[in-house]
Amino acid sequence: MSIRLTPDLTIDLLAQLRAGTPLVQSLTNVVVTNFTANALLALGAAPAMTDIPGEAGPFARIASGVLINLGTPTAEQREAMAEAAVVVADAGTPWVLDPVAVGSLPVRTRLAAELLERRPAVIRGNASEIIALAGQGAGGRGVDATDNPEDALPAAQLLAGKYGSVVAVSGSVDLVTDGQDVLRIGNGHPWLTRITGGGCALGAVTAAFLGAAPDVDRLAAAAAGTAVYTVAAEIAAEQAAGPGSFAVAFLDALAAVDAADLTSRLVIS
Amino acid sequence: MSIRLTPDLTIDLLAQLRAGTPLVQSLTNVVVTNFTANALLALGAAPAMTDIPGEAGPFARIASGVLINLGTPTAEQREAMAEAAVVVADAGTPWVLDPVAVGSLPVRTRLAAELLERRPAVIRGNASEIIALAGQGAGGRGVDATDNPEDALPAAQLLAGKYGSVVAVSGSVDLVTDGQDVLRIGNGHPWLTRITGGGCALGAVTAAFLGAAPDVDRLAAAAAGTAVYTVAAEIAAEQAAGPGSFAVAFLDALAAVDAADLTSRLVIS
Amino acid sequence: MSIRLTPDLTIDLLAQLRAGTPLVQSLTNVVVTNFTANALLALGAAPAMTDIPGEAGPFARIASGVLINLGTPTAEQREAMAEAAVVVADAGTPWVLDPVAVGSLPVRTRLAAELLERRPAVIRGNASEIIALAGQGAGGRGVDATDNPEDALPAAQLLAGKYGSVVAVSGSVDLVTDGQDVLRIGNGHPWLTRITGGGCALGAVTAAFLGAAPDVDRLAAAAAGTAVYTVAAEIAAEQAAGPGSFAVAFLDALAAVDAADLTSRLVIS
Repeated sequence: MSIRLTPDLTIDLLAQLRAGTPLVQSLTNVVVTNFTANALLALGAAPAMTDIPGEAGPFARIASGVLINLGTPTAEQREAMAEAAVVVADAGTPWVLDPVAVGSLPVRTRLAAELLERRPAVIRGNASEIIALAGQGAGGRGVDATDNPEDALPAAQLLAGKYGSVVAVSGSVDLVTDGQDVLRIGNGHPWLTRITGGGCALGAVTAAFLGAAPDVDRLAAAAAGTAVYTVAAEIAAEQAAGPGSFAVAFLDALAAVDAADLTSRLVIS
Repeated sequence: MSIRLTPDLTIDLLAQLRAGTPLVQSLTNVVVTNFTANALLALGAAPAMTDIPGEAGPFARIASGVLINLGTPTAEQREAMAEAAVVVADAGTPWVLDPVAVGSLPVRTRLAAELLERRPAVIRGNASEIIALAGQGAGGRGVDATDNPEDALPAAQLLAGKYGSVVAVSGSVDLVTDGQDVLRIGNGHPWLTRITGGGCALGAVTAAFLGAAPDVDRLAAAAAGTAVYTVAAEIAAEQAAGPGSFAVAFLDALAAVDAADLTSRLVIS
Repeated sequence: MSIRLTPDLTIDLLAQLRAGTPLVQSLTNVVVTNFTANALLALGAAPAMTDIPGEAGPFARIASGVLINLGTPTAEQREAMAEAAVVVADAGTPWVLDPVAVGSLPVRTRLAAELLERRPAVIRGNASEIIALAGQGAGGRGVDATDNPEDALPAAQLLAGKYGSVVAVSGSVDLVTDGQDVLRIGNGHPWLTRITGGGCALGAVTAAFLGAAPDVDRLAAAAAGTAVYTVAAEIAAEQAAGPGSFAVAFLDALAAVDAADLTSRLVIS
């Protein structure tokens, strides 16, 4: 039976998230910590950025979901990431790996390879990063996506099969696959690529959706996270005059997005 | 004679702050550095985030007030915090301890215990944190407050008595005590809990008020900081459509809040 | 022949930047990473904050321009800065040094002296910092400018002559010199000093202008960066109600500023 995401299921998962306020631990890069925490709070989740050795592991034990984002991985943070990954792998806590700019940069590329062995519930990246992570390309220019999500589908399926992960590829049409089924979400707005953290915060939101609904299929939960996030971006863009006001309106929209918005706007195939 | 806070005293202390632009050194967590610096600048203080060993101490010598916030305490920052705490204890510079998420997390809980020995002028936290710091509870879920400020009053009084500190507990009604007198400020808005740094920046603002008026009783100065901050939040909420626009309007309100706002809005008991 | 900056050249350089989306690597302080990345994205450049040892050097090899900002220089970041500086000096990649708060703080003051030996294309700071860097003063209070840009002209010319750098001094009238010619830009708004990162992000924007037009004289390119940046600030101030809404409008204005704005507003002498 193939997995599908309907507007009704998306609405239901968003309601579960807001009722449960899942605790989402984010070990993420220094550029986007503030925006990520604010996106989680706006949506209705509870953020915590606990990312030092000796605390990252204990905290992961009580978290509902965990994000590990490799954007600026200091030595201390790398140790904390390894510590948290052991705990979540052991506890079965859903976690998301965001392999920012892997490929050409050696430290994070090695780290990503090690973390993959802990089998993330979801791997989220742009097309260049997913292709590089699968060992099929050289990566983009840092966080830039130089490839189309559809071009990354074989790489996404390879990773999904090898690590038992759902793989989410961001782009103008987002693509989410468990290696078998492929869901595509056609919402969003180009301004998400003109603010820093537009992709990174989605990793944390994905961890929130996974943590809020542990009994739901991970492909559906991850796709619901992308769906809510990108619909909020559409709403925000209608009220914004540029990237600055877009970021502000986007946080407002994450807090306000509701069943009617999702019913009328969602483009899933 | 019991300490009281009147609107007139609050107005006077705010005027002193804006006239003196106190230099506030914040050793704080990576999530809220930007928001904290912007809150201080908006209010009229001069922020500096000097938090590396070898500089944190020398800088503390020229600072008017210091904040030590334990949100994401890396090894290097812990060393810098210890260095700054020695200087401020020696120099008599007023400083604020914000024991973010103490209780269950071992590294910061040990650090908080050490820093307490340097006798902070003010300890600021939510109810869970104050209860945990006093050794009377297990702490909340990270930065979440799971307790009511009134429930933390015995813990606050215990800490105040033991360390000679003023203790400020954030909540829907904020509570500030020196162990004897208890001031309650009924201003604020729930959106302060839906943006990251809503509590953390108050710690820095409190240090600014202490630094701007070294001759004023610390209970009154700390309460004035909470009063101005939470009145600005009320003003901002009236202009905002959600947490994103609230944060923006809040910075505007910190810059604009004036005597008339304080006179008409303050709810102190 | 003396170097001049005309509105037409500024317009041309901005168009080159937007067409080329230069990759700007920023090794910068933790307070302003987010704002800096957003300013670069809004303007049309591609930001990357790669600042760990083992990656900072390799990344510098592919960057179009690099910023090294000394605001919160952790040990790991200092090592990464040294690594990147070797690469850019070797490759001839234009890079900007922002000597935040040099003078009284020992760690960054030593580091600044070492980095100067790698001959930055541009040194950008406020008057206090430029005077302190030239060894002619004690520095300001942290990031505060306590001196007028014109007072820093001798120090700027000394640094320019000694290191072959263009020196940009921020203030109410910005001053940019290569040691011979002096360009003055009379645009801007005081609110740029009431938001954190108002100066720091200009360092990254300067690196973007240098990287986008490697064949243009560096004095003109650096001055064009200041010109576009400060004109955007003027536009933003007209739409803002305080420092919070100014920061948002400023990002919008960086994205929107166009030839007509520059033609009608630029004040260069």
